[in-house]
Amino acid sequence: MKFDKYYSKKARNMESSKIREISKIISERTDIISLAGGMPSPNSFPIEVVSELSDDLLEENGAEALQYGTTTGVKKLRNKIAERLNRNFDTSVSGGNVLVTSGAQQALYLIGKVFIQRDDQILVEAPTYASMLQILKEIDADVRDINLKEDGYSVEELQSYLESGGNPGLAYFVPTFQNPSGITTSREKREKLIEFATEHDFLIVEDDPYHQLRYSENSVPPIFSLDDQSRTIYVGTISKLLAPGLRVGWIVAREEFIDKLQLAKQPVDLCTNVFSQHLTYRYLEKGIVDRQIGKIIDLYRAKRDQMLESLEEFLPNSVEWTTPEGGMFIWLTLPDIIDTDEMFQGALDKGVAYVPGSIFYGTKPRKNTLRLNFTFVEKEQIEEGVKKLGELIRENLP
Amino acid sequence: MKFDKYYSKKARNMESSKIREISKIISERTDIISLAGGMPSPNSFPIEVVSELSDDLLEENGAEALQYGTTTGVKKLRNKIAERLNRNFDTSVSGGNVLVTSGAQQALYLIGKVFIQRDDQILVEAPTYASMLQILKEIDADVRDINLKEDGYSVEELQSYLESGGNPGLAYFVPTFQNPSGITTSREKREKLIEFATEHDFLIVEDDPYHQLRYSENSVPPIFSLDDQSRTIYVGTISKLLAPGLRVGWIVAREEFIDKLQLAKQPVDLCTNVFSQHLTYRYLEKGIVDRQIGKIIDLYRAKRDQMLESLEEFLPNSVEWTTPEGGMFIWLTLPDIIDTDEMFQGALDKGVAYVPGSIFYGTKPRKNTLRLNFTFVEKEQIEEGVKKLGELIRENLP
Repeated sequence: MKFDKYYSKKARNMESSKIREISKIISERTDIISLAGGMPSPNSFPIEVVSELSDDLLEENGAEALQYGTTTGVKKLRNKIAERLNRNFDTSVSGGNVLVTSGAQQALYLIGKVFIQRDDQILVEAPTYASMLQILKEIDADVRDINLKEDGYSVEELQSYLESGGNPGLAYFVPTFQNPSGITTSREKREKLIEFATEHDFLIVEDDPYHQLRYSENSVPPIFSLDDQSRTIYVGTISKLLAPGLRVGWIVAREEFIDKLQLAKQPVDLCTNVFSQHLTYRYLEKGIVDRQIGKIIDLYRAKRDQMLESLEEFLPNSVEWTTPEGGMFIWLTLPDIIDTDEMFQGALDKGVAYVPGSIFYGTKPRKNTLRLNFTFVEKEQIEEGVKKLGELIRENLP
Repeated sequence: MKFDKYYSKKARNMESSKIREISKIISERTDIISLAGGMPSPNSFPIEVVSELSDDLLEENGAEALQYGTTTGVKKLRNKIAERLNRNFDTSVSGGNVLVTSGAQQALYLIGKVFIQRDDQILVEAPTYASMLQILKEIDADVRDINLKEDGYSVEELQSYLESGGNPGLAYFVPTFQNPSGITTSREKREKLIEFATEHDFLIVEDDPYHQLRYSENSVPPIFSLDDQSRTIYVGTISKLLAPGLRVGWIVAREEFIDKLQLAKQPVDLCTNVFSQHLTYRYLEKGIVDRQIGKIIDLYRAKRDQMLESLEEFLPNSVEWTTPEGGMFIWLTLPDIIDTDEMFQGALDKGVAYVPGSIFYGTKPRKNTLRLNFTFVEKEQIEEGVKKLGELIRENLP
């Protein structure tokens, strides 16, 4: 309070991300099995590959990799990102449609700066990515939750909101292996969303960090590739395919939007880490990424299966959970009587951590939900952690 | 215009940094000697050292260096930054006083978010760092220019502003080898600024990227070390001592401020590049930085001397310039009749580039000024570039 006079109004209202607070607590205690964070497995990092790429890069192109870069990003990386998107999906974009960002988080922040202002109605899935909610709160946007069903957002809810005079500026969706729910939006619902957006003239932001971490055969194309790429802004990242510590993400959108977004980026950090951009380029260009994705999928599929099995074994029948076809998370819905915020301290005492579901809602939080991550810890710990969670839940039931 | 309806009010008003626009033009033309940008010499990068450090890092600590990190930064790097500051100057800070940022530019952006809001009176030197002006413009701050003299800001101007009811929230100063002027604020004026700030209860932001690039014997301590470290917020960076492409900067301030600043950073990019942070730590910890600084100083001193000599040789007597004791820039004041914005195209036609002085002013630009950089190009090019500039100026005189 003493220092409030020095702070901007925005700063006075800032609240810490609960996930980052939880992560801090957990990082200081080695006795807790953390199913909380959203971190990749350290075993998924191709450390030797990075070392080789880095040596070659410094030898062949060191002066450029260590110098300032343009705000839009390293040109050949932008081209490569566009090329890969076109190869994987039915899109026709070029490097000019790509802005390289300091991780996907910065992509979302810049989108907030450029496309959202105070009181704008912003559609989000309920639940949704908590750090996007933090951005929206900072802007003071008017967040509108659309509940998620097994196959994506509730079309009825969105329709009724729009028909009753709803006027969204933008819809923020994580349609594939969603964080936090693990849910994938069906192709039909994606197409319907584009229809809604076209009819009511709003933009769609598709946050797609997990797309290639797919453990089943069924693939649903990105919204961006179903749209004519004029209305959808696509956000991607190397964090889950190489390493999050390198902080390389990207936005793909129409050139007019990219130009505005790079203007928004200039004062924020001038340019994305140039060394990381060059590393990422080489990782993509040499095709190493595709071999590595195969390994990561094998690693994570086994962990997901372990978690699903353990949930089946240790959790009471009154608990429901999602069965994600990819990504990093499983979403649990507990009996109404349980408040996962209140139960959290008990979990730490027992030696297991989750993320309480309440933080993933823009407005009315469902307090009986929680998110589990299955990528970071080892398989044995998953079993042990879920067992502890099962005990805890039983203790909290009447 | 067509897309304006999708943009936030802030985005509609965004303007590109002129320096970045100029850099773009120049990067596409190999026939221009650029004395414009603010880039280090590629010869100042210890490429082999980075390669060795990077190999060791990945071998010994790869999983941590590639993972997500805390928003505040890698703990041992924070400690090391504090330790070095205490060793070099009369300060007593610890790692808790340090926030690692994605370059010094992000440090300034976060300071803007936390401490500045619309219509706040913000004191800046005239001229000052252009990208800080971009931040202040975005916030819609009420920028107040205080003219620079040979030994720093005009005490009379600042005093008269304060006595006539001026109510600054914050003063942003680059007191050592300033960008763009090359001027160093005297110790007396630094102490006077702290007095003013204490009496009128405003904060001081000291942006200090060039401190260790000193080519003369006289050293003036940072404002931060003359203050009791309660009112001054210090901004540093590894960009000029190692490499800007790694994007590692830092803020040193009282812990309460650091806590607020890390909150402001969370939604912006979660954390600074972890790999770069570990590299920077090793570079500092092993003392390589000190040897490297010696080399960089030798390299740049010779370039500065070359530029001063060439200015003496090729420029008309009616032009004045600063004699920087360190840093990267020399500031020219031309006869009033010359407008350096208007002269710029002529410079490009002649094959030399500078930055017009007008962009470095918050309010009334002095159109007859320009900035020259002497670190990026080779010595021979400095001579050639200044010669061209001399011809150009003569052509523009009556």
